[in-house]
Amino acid sequence: MRILILGGDGYLGWPTAMAFANEGHDVCVVDNYLRRNLARETNSEALMSCPNLHERVGLFNATFGRKIDYHIFDCTDFARLESLVAAFAPETIIHYAEQPSAPYSMIGFPEAQRTLNNNLGVTFNAIWAIIRHAPDCHLVKLGTMGEYGTPNIDIEEGWLDVSHNGRRHKFLYPRQAGSLYHTTKVLDTDLLWFYVRTYGLRVTDLMQGPVYGLDTNESAADKRLAPSFHYDDIFGTVVNRFLVQAVAGIPLTVYGRGGQTRGYLNLLDTLQCVELAMKSPVERGELRILNQFTEQFTVNELAQRVRDAGKRLGIEVRIESIENPRKELEEHYYNARHSGLLELRLKPHFMTEEVLEKMLSRIMECRDAIDPKKVMPRVSWRS
Amino acid sequence: MRILILGGDGYLGWPTAMAFANEGHDVCVVDNYLRRNLARETNSEALMSCPNLHERVGLFNATFGRKIDYHIFDCTDFARLESLVAAFAPETIIHYAEQPSAPYSMIGFPEAQRTLNNNLGVTFNAIWAIIRHAPDCHLVKLGTMGEYGTPNIDIEEGWLDVSHNGRRHKFLYPRQAGSLYHTTKVLDTDLLWFYVRTYGLRVTDLMQGPVYGLDTNESAADKRLAPSFHYDDIFGTVVNRFLVQAVAGIPLTVYGRGGQTRGYLNLLDTLQCVELAMKSPVERGELRILNQFTEQFTVNELAQRVRDAGKRLGIEVRIESIENPRKELEEHYYNARHSGLLELRLKPHFMTEEVLEKMLSRIMECRDAIDPKKVMPRVSWRS
Repeated sequence: MRILILGGDGYLGWPTAMAFANEGHDVCVVDNYLRRNLARETNSEALMSCPNLHERVGLFNATFGRKIDYHIFDCTDFARLESLVAAFAPETIIHYAEQPSAPYSMIGFPEAQRTLNNNLGVTFNAIWAIIRHAPDCHLVKLGTMGEYGTPNIDIEEGWLDVSHNGRRHKFLYPRQAGSLYHTTKVLDTDLLWFYVRTYGLRVTDLMQGPVYGLDTNESAADKRLAPSFHYDDIFGTVVNRFLVQAVAGIPLTVYGRGGQTRGYLNLLDTLQCVELAMKSPVERGELRILNQFTEQFTVNELAQRVRDAGKRLGIEVRIESIENPRKELEEHYYNARHSGLLELRLKPHFMTEEVLEKMLSRIMECRDAIDPKKVMPRVSWRS
Repeated sequence: MRILILGGDGYLGWPTAMAFANEGHDVCVVDNYLRRNLARETNSEALMSCPNLHERVGLFNATFGRKIDYHIFDCTDFARLESLVAAFAPETIIHYAEQPSAPYSMIGFPEAQRTLNNNLGVTFNAIWAIIRHAPDCHLVKLGTMGEYGTPNIDIEEGWLDVSHNGRRHKFLYPRQAGSLYHTTKVLDTDLLWFYVRTYGLRVTDLMQGPVYGLDTNESAADKRLAPSFHYDDIFGTVVNRFLVQAVAGIPLTVYGRGGQTRGYLNLLDTLQCVELAMKSPVERGELRILNQFTEQFTVNELAQRVRDAGKRLGIEVRIESIENPRKELEEHYYNARHSGLLELRLKPHFMTEEVLEKMLSRIMECRDAIDPKKVMPRVSWRS
């Protein structure tokens, strides 16, 4: 299959590119190094240094005898994106090309504007490149469970059947997100749904929870192929950050009361989910929404699990509640469905003690590179 | 009160500026002539020629002994907008500065992109100009009833209380709009709601139905002060278009079966509603949503009313169903609440036969200027 990956240099994009190329698909990657640039601007660089896309692709192609094609440009440049889509004629486009950090989007006006313009702009351009040049192409888009926020009712999978004054209507599940970044994904979904029902696009929108993981099957062959692993407050997700804090002997920083519940998944399962979505594309005019996570925890439970795994490795892990830099509920109802991907035969990799221990051991190898200044919250939601 | 009007040269913006200035408020207007430029680009100019903002303001100030201040610039230029907000220190900002045409937004990629970038960009900039320079300022934003689309349940006023599996949550009413233009207003609402609850802005979002009308109290003093009156398929709303078709002896063009139901209001009531919203501002951190229309009709009923009014003036009006250029339900349930503005003491001007006759008579004075080529649909929703 011809697969175009937007944002193919990222934490998820690069492992996806390798996995699909390794299965023999025809993979083309675009990236403009936005995440790398923002990480450098905010002093939030990854724990292990990552070769650039040119080097990574060369290494991968040599190691696996495959040929990933790649282009460095900004997908908000419609002329370039549409000419690539016209030339490559993808059957699937996987769209990861978004500014992925909630704290970054809350720094101030320029960062918020950059997030809005990049995220909505790339989604808009992807839609129009498909309308113009590849109307049958299946767009697999990464959304976020954060789009739903934390409502006081069950979170359904994308849609909500509402009974009201004796009548019924099925709506897109009402969304209310906790950061500007998450809100741009809400806007993406609105925009996709409009163009799906109006012009008959084929779209799968994956509402993904926070991802953790350091390695994939392909990166096991050569450490230089590993995904970019961020542990800072801006680009690091909470599990990755806790693991690094444990290794560095810094207390795990629980924001506020720690009752915040989210659905998590292993990086290996992101790859599986995207592949499962890709292999069963939707019909023209259909927007499929899948909630992409495998298990739900509170932040306190996560911290506890990291502490337990640390103990087995002889690391004493402290847990500390700090003032919450975000505006969010710290105790709340949370019950999110996630049966769609299981029905597509997802085989979850749960967050076992072994998984955590393996990650801790891997991070211990890079212990000297940890910069404790990157860990404490530098961005507040209070303007 | 110091009132800044974004889009103050438009069909609604200019009458608003005159009305508030005439009441003694301190009125400052910004416009970049976007609507004028797009109308000229698409051969959709207004029925009566409108003096430019410089001339209009001069005429108004001389006629009424007032002083409207005005600036010609693009509100997507944040630097200019924020410095005006900092200097003028508005107590209310009224935000009309959006590309207002659904058909224009459906022409193709460049028009869709321009609509998205302008509408969302101005809303975003207005939000940030307020955060930075006027955090107590009340933003009165024009949304559209079209944000809700035509769900099969009652349309509530902005919010929906959902019962689901034995639990309850109050959501922003789920929106699903019928054009990209209307969808940009959905995105505006999502964005406003995020910043209201996160940074404590004060916002009233007015979900307005299609507006009709040719004159206001101020424009009665001098015809050159009249609002821009569009009757074409792109910028003309359905009532205005039907009235011009009646006068020109062209059949009223009902799209499809004509059962499309919407809530309409008189231009005089737009002025009243905006004033009522402004005079009872909301608290910090509150998003008030008001459904702004006074009566509901189907398109067939509207056509019938125009025919009846024509008969009394000796005009024989024909009605013709043509193929619907839009994708929309042509028969549907529609029951939208609109009690909020009545509670603020709106005194509706209904669409009586006298009102329609008066409009028809006014249009008859300009009969020779009517260009029948501008009336038939030139834009299709089918890509």
